Amino acid sequence: MQDSTQLSTPERPHHSLAAGLCLGAALLMAGGAQAWDGLVEKQVFEMDAYTTRGGETIADLAVGWEAYGTLNEARNNAILITHFFSGTSHAAGRYEEEGPAGYWDSIIGPGKPLDTDEYYIIASDTLVNLNAHAPNVTTTGPASLHPETGEPWGLDFPVVTIGDFVDVQKALLESQGIERLHAVMGASMGALQAYEWASTYPDRVERLIPVIGAGEADPWLLATLAAWAAPIRVDANWNGGDYYDGEPPLDGLREALKLVTLNANHWQWANETFDRSWADEQADPARDLDARYAIEQTLDDIAAARAEQADANHLLYLVRANQTFMAGHGESLEAGLAAIEAPTLMLYSEDDLVFAPQSVKRTAELIGADGTPVELIPLAGTRGHLDGVVAIDQAGDRLRAFLAE
Amino acid sequence: MQDSTQLSTPERPHHSLAAGLCLGAALLMAGGAQAWDGLVEKQVFEMDAYTTRGGETIADLAVGWEAYGTLNEARNNAILITHFFSGTSHAAGRYEEEGPAGYWDSIIGPGKPLDTDEYYIIASDTLVNLNAHAPNVTTTGPASLHPETGEPWGLDFPVVTIGDFVDVQKALLESQGIERLHAVMGASMGALQAYEWASTYPDRVERLIPVIGAGEADPWLLATLAAWAAPIRVDANWNGGDYYDGEPPLDGLREALKLVTLNANHWQWANETFDRSWADEQADPARDLDARYAIEQTLDDIAAARAEQADANHLLYLVRANQTFMAGHGESLEAGLAAIEAPTLMLYSEDDLVFAPQSVKRTAELIGADGTPVELIPLAGTRGHLDGVVAIDQAGDRLRAFLAE
Repeated sequence: MQDSTQLSTPERPHHSLAAGLCLGAALLMAGGAQAWDGLVEKQVFEMDAYTTRGGETIADLAVGWEAYGTLNEARNNAILITHFFSGTSHAAGRYEEEGPAGYWDSIIGPGKPLDTDEYYIIASDTLVNLNAHAPNVTTTGPASLHPETGEPWGLDFPVVTIGDFVDVQKALLESQGIERLHAVMGASMGALQAYEWASTYPDRVERLIPVIGAGEADPWLLATLAAWAAPIRVDANWNGGDYYDGEPPLDGLREALKLVTLNANHWQWANETFDRSWADEQADPARDLDARYAIEQTLDDIAAARAEQADANHLLYLVRANQTFMAGHGESLEAGLAAIEAPTLMLYSEDDLVFAPQSVKRTAELIGADGTPVELIPLAGTRGHLDGVVAIDQAGDRLRAFLAE
Repeated sequence: MQDSTQLSTPERPHHSLAAGLCLGAALLMAGGAQAWDGLVEKQVFEMDAYTTRGGETIADLAVGWEAYGTLNEARNNAILITHFFSGTSHAAGRYEEEGPAGYWDSIIGPGKPLDTDEYYIIASDTLVNLNAHAPNVTTTGPASLHPETGEPWGLDFPVVTIGDFVDVQKALLESQGIERLHAVMGASMGALQAYEWASTYPDRVERLIPVIGAGEADPWLLATLAAWAAPIRVDANWNGGDYYDGEPPLDGLREALKLVTLNANHWQWANETFDRSWADEQADPARDLDARYAIEQTLDDIAAARAEQADANHLLYLVRANQTFMAGHGESLEAGLAAIEAPTLMLYSEDDLVFAPQSVKRTAELIGADGTPVELIPLAGTRGHLDGVVAIDQAGDRLRAFLAE
């Protein structure tokens, strides 16, 4: 069921940038005061062609998006939510009554800190989204069909950056007539997109809310991301990225996703959630090299479920997009962060094993160096990096106030 | 050159346990007051047969060992050093004048905290040692030839535990007439062996010095170790462990070793040692999916060098030996640690990403619960877990005093 105030493109029309602007005008008329009921319809934004910041052309680009709340007549109440590495645009609400809620549903909705009675909250799937085969995800990447050959792009797909993610989002927003964002907020890789928005388009971003992310990929993150990519490249089925007419490298993909899950957590979580139980009480790990412990089984099961909807090449492209990130994509981090003018609220975890707290703090210092207001708030919890996703509600009051300032 | 006071078995004779005792008597005569000059000869201890704690028999077992200093007439000045996951018995000194020093050379030697003028310091390669193909390592494991078939054991080799490592060391020490240890000290997996010594043989251990290790493998460590094993199992060349007459799974082994290096370090190290430089200034990672950053190249190079001397199945067996560890290998950690009677000096890092500081602290509490003296000292540094190896010298004064108490 779709709320009548939701943005709707029933036949998924092909939106060029120009067509998008027309849709924006149509939205203006559809807008109303009715409350958002939490049911979400995934929609698709299309572009005839997109030219990457690296100068490569991607024809017939499409990304999924969804929105919560209503765009006001001035079109100045939009908040963009940018998603994390393994995430999608499903930040809040449900696709069906009994379905799973979006990852930040605790803070997005009627009366919640990101109040859908007040704001129009929009999120889109990134280019090269990990979950290329998920039913509610639309993305363009190596697994997409090349329009000229009708075959998957594979590694012929251009390397894309966080800047490209942002520029596609910008086209999406312009298609709805949105020229300025009340705020941009994202976690982890979403934080990178948020920094990039505020650095590249400072006159379009009124407030910046980066969560569990720093202004560049530091060396630790470069190495961590490389470790995530490694098992895929080891898998013979990966075949140099050319596997779309054969067996996909699922073993490697599962192990990559297992590492993502482990690194995004923290030993506090592992040790409070699990004990030394065996996965199978008949199979003693001290007797059988193939026997596992319960925590291994759980991580394997999570990874196997995620791998079914994911694409291995997309993971490699996401790794690279994160690795290449430096806010503003210019000569220096200092310049990229100095370009940010929006008042900034940063949330982070002292136990983050992906984005070093040290780098997050340096980011805050550099943003604030020229007088831009910056507030840096630690998140409590036992999940490390993931506290920025699963424990975001603790920052609800501050988020609500920051958005009203 | 070998110091004449060193233990020497020129023709690597076959030492049964009984023969070992005879050798011990011979040593007594060879002992002298001459200073140890830092040159080390790797030696080999052999057993006709060893029965694992799991009840399996390993015939023709051999492990390498080396020693620094002189065993006194009372044979009560021995300190056993137990090595870490990727380590060997090369704890101190050099095999040749210009060769690399052992990993704890900063604290072991004449006049150093572990003073070879006073103590007889001995270290042995573990069973299933990772570096099965290193010139100065002797070990028995899946890569060893099964005495009956003349073929490598492969996965027919029994799963062995830290307890087995200890029991082989016990046989080695008994072969030299050593019934009690002045101290046992080890880092990481070496700490596990040290706990096991003190728990299983409390009347043989006078002082316990576990460094960067806890009394059991906690769930976080179980999962971390599983992640190290994963790339090997993904590598098609692994072939279920049966690769000794074909291509070994070097890709998987390298990626496993890369993870070991990364996890044993800390973001402080990565971010103070590296920047965002490319590995090849002609190959821009934003243009080429195969291009790498300098930190990736360095980690890859380290892993490649280590993989040349390592065996993939040995790594899997080491993972399992660490996973199964609980001091005393009994019903409970509490009982295993209560069995420890030796005064204990524990060194650890608050930034350890392998052994959770929380688990180290709990270990100290449980050892001390019945009144056993325990001291827990944090190590400073930027290497996380590895500070227990590379920054051990900061604990030198305390180690010297503890050994004299």
